[in-house]
Parts: sequence; C-alpha cells; structure tokens
Amino acid sequence: MGTDYVHGYTTAETRRLTDQAGTLADLLHGDTPYEAGSRVLEVGCGVGAQTVQLLTRSPGIRLTSVDISEESLAHAKARVAAEVPGAEVDWLHADLLGLTPDQLGLFDHLFLCFVLEHLPKPVEALTSLQRLLRPGGSITVIEGDHESAFFHPRSTEAQAVIDCLIDLQAEAGGDSLIGRRLQPLLTDAGYDDVRARPCTVYADETLPHLVDGFTRKTFIAMVESVRDRSLAAGLRTPAQWEQGIRALERAAEPGGTFHYTFFKAVGTQRWSG
Amino acid sequence: MGTDYVHGYTTAETRRLTDQAGTLADLLHGDTPYEAGSRVLEVGCGVGAQTVQLLTRSPGIRLTSVDISEESLAHAKARVAAEVPGAEVDWLHADLLGLTPDQLGLFDHLFLCFVLEHLPKPVEALTSLQRLLRPGGSITVIEGDHESAFFHPRSTEAQAVIDCLIDLQAEAGGDSLIGRRLQPLLTDAGYDDVRARPCTVYADETLPHLVDGFTRKTFIAMVESVRDRSLAAGLRTPAQWEQGIRALERAAEPGGTFHYTFFKAVGTQRWSG
Repeated sequence: MGTDYVHGYTTAETRRLTDQAGTLADLLHGDTPYEAGSRVLEVGCGVGAQTVQLLTRSPGIRLTSVDISEESLAHAKARVAAEVPGAEVDWLHADLLGLTPDQLGLFDHLFLCFVLEHLPKPVEALTSLQRLLRPGGSITVIEGDHESAFFHPRSTEAQAVIDCLIDLQAEAGGDSLIGRRLQPLLTDAGYDDVRARPCTVYADETLPHLVDGFTRKTFIAMVESVRDRSLAAGLRTPAQWEQGIRALERAAEPGGTFHYTFFKAVGTQRWSG
Repeated sequence: MGTDYVHGYTTAETRRLTDQAGTLADLLHGDTPYEAGSRVLEVGCGVGAQTVQLLTRSPGIRLTSVDISEESLAHAKARVAAEVPGAEVDWLHADLLGLTPDQLGLFDHLFLCFVLEHLPKPVEALTSLQRLLRPGGSITVIEGDHESAFFHPRSTEAQAVIDCLIDLQAEAGGDSLIGRRLQPLLTDAGYDDVRARPCTVYADETLPHLVDGFTRKTFIAMVESVRDRSLAAGLRTPAQWEQGIRALERAAEPGGTFHYTFFKAVGTQRWSG
C-alpha cells in the first residue's frame, strides 16, 4: 500500500470513491444486513463510503473501522459525522495484518470492500483476519474485476487506457482482476461454506443514473485517476491517452453501453479449530 | 447463415444446444411469460430448445416457430413432440427476412434467442420483423457476448481458443459480441421503450450444476465445436488447441471459476406509425 496505492488520496479521488458507493450501494450492500448489537469489523474503511452504508443499513451494530491511512480515516470520520449523525464508530489506525484478538476481542462479522485488490498476499491477509472472527461468524468480501469491463462501441484505444489501470495496480503488487477468484481465495484461507456471486452493473441511455453515476463518475473517473502515472511510466502518450478516454466516453453517450461485474463473497468461521 | 453458420448441425451440437437451454432456462426465460391465447412468433427456433421453454412457461400461447434450416426444424418438431406432448406449433421453413404480414398476420409477441449473432445485418432483420408485430406488441431478444467470458485461472492459451470462436463467427458475417449492443440495435430498428439487462452466469465448485451444465457442457463444448475449422483456418495448431482447451477446463475444476454474461432486451411496437 503506502505510496504505491493505486487509488490516490486527492480530493477528486475522494469524491469518486464517494460517488461510487452511492450508485452501487443497493447492488453491493442490499443483502448484507447485520443484526443490531453485533460487533462488526470493517477492514480498510478508506474514506468511509462503505462505513456509511454499514451504519445506515444495519442500525445498532457496534462498528470498528480500521485503515492504514490516517488521512483516509480523517475523511471517513468527517463523512460519518455529516451523514450519519450520532453514529458511534471505533476508529482504528492500523495495518490489517497487525490486528490481534488480544487487542480487539472477537467480532461477529468482518467486512472488506475494495481492499484485497491492493494486497500482494490476499490469502495471508484473510488467514490473519480469521483470528478476529468468532466461531460461526461471517466474513464478507466485495471486489471488482477490471477485465469484466466491456462496452459499446468497442475500441482498442479505450481498452488500452483500462489496461494501464490493470498494469499499474499489478506493478504495485495488487490485482484488479481479483473479483473472479474470491471463492477460491476465501476457501484457501480456511473459511467455511464460502459462496460468491457476481454483482453486475450495466448502463445504457435508458439508465441515466447509472451512466452518470457508474460509467462516468466511477469507472471512467477511476481510469482518469491514473493518467499521470500512466504517462510517467511511458504506457501511453498524452495523445493516446486523450484518444482512449474519448473513446471510453462514447460508451456513456446515447447508443453506448457499459458492463462491469463486481463479486461479493461470504464465508463463515468454522466452529471447531 | 447456410454453410457458414458457426454452430454445426451435428448430433453433439444438437445436444449442446439442448443442454444449454436446460441450464440457462430460468435465467433467460424466467421473466418472459406470455398471456394465454396470445400469438407468438419464434424467429430462428433452431433445434427447438427455446421452443420447449416458450410452450412450458407460457401455456396456451399460439406459437409459430420459424427456421431457415429444414434439418433443425425436424429436430425441433421431434423434441417438442417428446417433451411437450399435445402442444401445437405452426412450424414454418423460411428465411426471417421473407416473412410478411400478408402471409402470417400480426403477432402479439416476437421472440429471438441466439439468432441476431449470426446475421450480417441485424438492424435490417429487426426492422423487417417489425411489420409482423401489432401496435403495442413486444419483441424479446436474447444474445450472448463472448468477450464477457473470463475465468480463473487466467490463461492466454485458453483465451486464444475462445478468440477462434469469435473470429470464425465474425468471418461468417456474424457477431458473437452482439449482446452488449442489443439496446442500441432495437432502438435503431425503431422499437419503442427498449430495455436491456444482463443475465450473468457465474460458476464455481459450490455450484456444480452450473460448472457441469454451463462451463463444461455449454461454453467449453461450444468452443470445442469449432476445433476443426480453427485448425483448417490455421488459427491454432493441434497442440495449441489441446493446450487451450485443457487450460479452459481448469476453470471447471475445484478452485476454478467461470463468468459469462447474456443480455436480454425487450422493446415494444409503437402505437402510431
């Protein structure tokens, strides 16, 4: 993570992560209601976009939200204070690999959204987190998969700028194609009864809220956030970059379409062992 | 179509198309119940896999099923007789572009599944069919999109054999990536209130019926059906082909995953004009 974190900490990036959660909230969170009073650990809360969803969709939970970035935590605190007034969250500045039950106790539920994609060793992270989950407790993991992005009209230039995002995240030790392998990852980490499902976003002109909220403000904005690093790495020339973004934007215009698949996996902690 | 039709008419192919319909039936047909007594035209019924679905899911419809292949129609008739005893279907051997209201009258609903992908001019076909639809009547179109196929573990060899399927269909004048553009296609053809949605299939070891019924018996079987033509066209060597299929089969083994998106679009006939 650190400076190689593929998503920046700029204001524009904070806004993008915020827009993303608003648009995708029902799709990603609709079937994750936690019971009031349960202890929930949000691992990698970032700027708090999902924290707000957890607090509003599962009122009465006892939430602990952890992030490795102090700056992100500050954003998250401010956001929760503004959007869910009165909500209490135990905020924790820590590396997820360093969390221990001695320090935190056991949780009923673990929640990770857009976190594993940034980790060089996701199975080890999942195994480490298992120590914090009570027997019978659940883990929920949500990730995207950038190879699931396809669109009309097709364009090799547009695909090339998307590939920059995939390549830069891989160079930073992450995997933006991790969505497809959540089921084997959680199973390999030792969780029980793992179930994964796709959460598909499709947008065309008949769905203007998704064209704007997802195609433009989530996906294209995410690609645009790696422009400077792509140019600095020599992956594209400025002219090629502009051409690619323009081609991608046609998917958000009338007659265009855009498709992307997230994956959501849920596993449980074994009762024995 | 004719000899360039990318899907063969062999027994193995007939079995694949049959397996496909069984596995995908709920996903693709679940929300298409036609009212009893309504006149439905199935365009391009092939070997009857979808015909059976229409008859069983919408009892009492007055169904006309058209195909350009007499051999396929014979299969379809036999299949319906065996699986939906007593069902009456008006079978018609014709090119869809030659159908006229003078000959057939007007229909309440048009249904096309895995047909447009084979046509060099899908918009013209859709426009031509419009003459057969009563004002306020509906058209339903279902198609796949082979670029939506992605899997774990990733493999360039596996992707290369999938690309053979895409390339051969394109050479034959078709478009196996047509799913993503159903909304603009139906809109361009003049249908009203067009809505498209993705129908996503995801299979991993926790979903053995889909691993077997979809990953193996639908998708991999479809790729395997173009082996000889791919080798004859020099797209792959026999060794490369076997390597690609073996790599693809790993997606159907424990720890593997497979993802594919179909699209279903519905439009209506304008009341005026």
